[in-house]
Amino acid sequence: MTDPSRPPICVLGLGLIGGSLLRAAARAGRAGFGYNRSAEGAAAARAAGFDADTDLDAVLRRAAEEYALVVLATPATTLDDLLPVVARLAPECVLTDVVSVKESVADAVARLHPGARYVGGHPMAGTSQSGWAATDPDLFDGAMWMVTTEDGTDPDDWLTVAALARDCGAQVVPAANDAHDRAVAAISHLPHLTADATAAVGAGESGLALRLAAGSFRDGTRVAGTAPALQRAMLEANRIALLNTLSETIDRLTVARDELRDRGSVEIIVDDGHRARLAYDVMASTPAPPIVDVEPGEQGWAAEMRRQAHLGHTWQR
Amino acid sequence: MTDPSRPPICVLGLGLIGGSLLRAAARAGRAGFGYNRSAEGAAAARAAGFDADTDLDAVLRRAAEEYALVVLATPATTLDDLLPVVARLAPECVLTDVVSVKESVADAVARLHPGARYVGGHPMAGTSQSGWAATDPDLFDGAMWMVTTEDGTDPDDWLTVAALARDCGAQVVPAANDAHDRAVAAISHLPHLTADATAAVGAGESGLALRLAAGSFRDGTRVAGTAPALQRAMLEANRIALLNTLSETIDRLTVARDELRDRGSVEIIVDDGHRARLAYDVMASTPAPPIVDVEPGEQGWAAEMRRQAHLGHTWQR
Repeated sequence: MTDPSRPPICVLGLGLIGGSLLRAAARAGRAGFGYNRSAEGAAAARAAGFDADTDLDAVLRRAAEEYALVVLATPATTLDDLLPVVARLAPECVLTDVVSVKESVADAVARLHPGARYVGGHPMAGTSQSGWAATDPDLFDGAMWMVTTEDGTDPDDWLTVAALARDCGAQVVPAANDAHDRAVAAISHLPHLTADATAAVGAGESGLALRLAAGSFRDGTRVAGTAPALQRAMLEANRIALLNTLSETIDRLTVARDELRDRGSVEIIVDDGHRARLAYDVMASTPAPPIVDVEPGEQGWAAEMRRQAHLGHTWQR
Repeated sequence: MTDPSRPPICVLGLGLIGGSLLRAAARAGRAGFGYNRSAEGAAAARAAGFDADTDLDAVLRRAAEEYALVVLATPATTLDDLLPVVARLAPECVLTDVVSVKESVADAVARLHPGARYVGGHPMAGTSQSGWAATDPDLFDGAMWMVTTEDGTDPDDWLTVAALARDCGAQVVPAANDAHDRAVAAISHLPHLTADATAAVGAGESGLALRLAAGSFRDGTRVAGTAPALQRAMLEANRIALLNTLSETIDRLTVARDELRDRGSVEIIVDDGHRARLAYDVMASTPAPPIVDVEPGEQGWAAEMRRQAHLGHTWQR
């Protein structure tokens, strides 16, 4: 192994994200193998030429032998069962995850694998599909991949996780766990709830309404098609941040209703929404500036990275 | 003119919908011409080979001479100025519109052009773009196009409007104006308000949040990018129906917030939303059955067409 930040990867859970990650890493020439609970999923991965097994103990023993980077890619609800096994069989491996909410995963790791060399991660990519059949080696190309960057984060382990994100085609967004969780509540979890509500109201109106539904309904409710168990695991794990953002949304819609009822106007909500979408369009259509003038391990590196990330910069090395 | 249901078309307003309609009709071999208030828009249409003018009176005199089908394709807020001119210069022409909300247009027609041979229409197609530059002759291919089908609707005029929709590549959905307005409040106007609120909350969180925004935010807020004046004209014209559907949405989100706060669960809203989206997916992925066993002009034809449309069937002749 010539590059210490690029060990083999061991992916636990070969669904949409975990399976795509194994394929994306292989595309970049990284060695890797995986575990999947269901025999069907493991067989599908093997049929596609990947090294996949349903024997968790065997997979983790091999990870320990190869000093692999272990990637938790199973639903958040499974971590309480999984982490003690990782702690027992692969305690020295660098550990990351691709689970949405970061504070709850960090809490579980601290509780069940307290000595872990853990650096959290969250690739901002996905579809409403799930399972190995939906995996795509290009899923992360150009995506943002949050990597936990706290004042106590080990810089070598951070570089190991960041290299995985880069090898998968993503840009690295350094962030503290709590800031990440508030951000994804606003731009990922809330959109699931508004999509769910919009879908339910639209479908409840009439068969005529569903027949007339076009682009605004199709796009606005797309993520309501995500498997309910996945939506619930993601949203319920981020309860506090989601409550805040949901309350703000209810407040905005209530003001809009009152304005529409009393003045016949939707000016405020439309103007605010339009301005916000334009701000997003500008950011999405502009290449992210690279994080510069800071190296992992330098004095204050984590705080400086977070500062630049808050300006919209990303780690691109 | 060999087919009495296919006269030349006269489009008033050559923006996204009106301009696309002129181009789609031309693609089908229909003669047509148009009016646009701005010289830039008219010049752009002429540059693309279409017959467009900024002289409203001249355009309408020509429509009267050619017994053209006049299509109102300007924002709803302009109808009070436009309709008296249509009534004065082209009173005998069959008249339709492509404005979203149907009851308010029908009211304006009854008030300002009481003798009109008016049959309303609403093509369910659009993008967040506007203006001639965004027009597309294929915009309506496979789209649903509501055509007003009331008990008093003239069957020949109905067939004239339905033929335009068919020539543009759309399927015809016969509906009463009030049922249409309730339906579009639920599947088009409400999704604009939820997109607006979701965009505003997401963008207000942090630069980090906008950088992390991915598919759920992008798709869920797309229509917030529609020009505010267009959103307002459309939504405010459908005030009563939109108030009902918005109140139901607020209620659903409030129940979700209370469930999340008190029980840590989003089960109800996620399950309802997922079921609704699946129902939409099934309808959207299944060809609409054709309306059968009824001919415009037969005893009770309008009610029978509406009945079949409420089952999701469309007029495909």
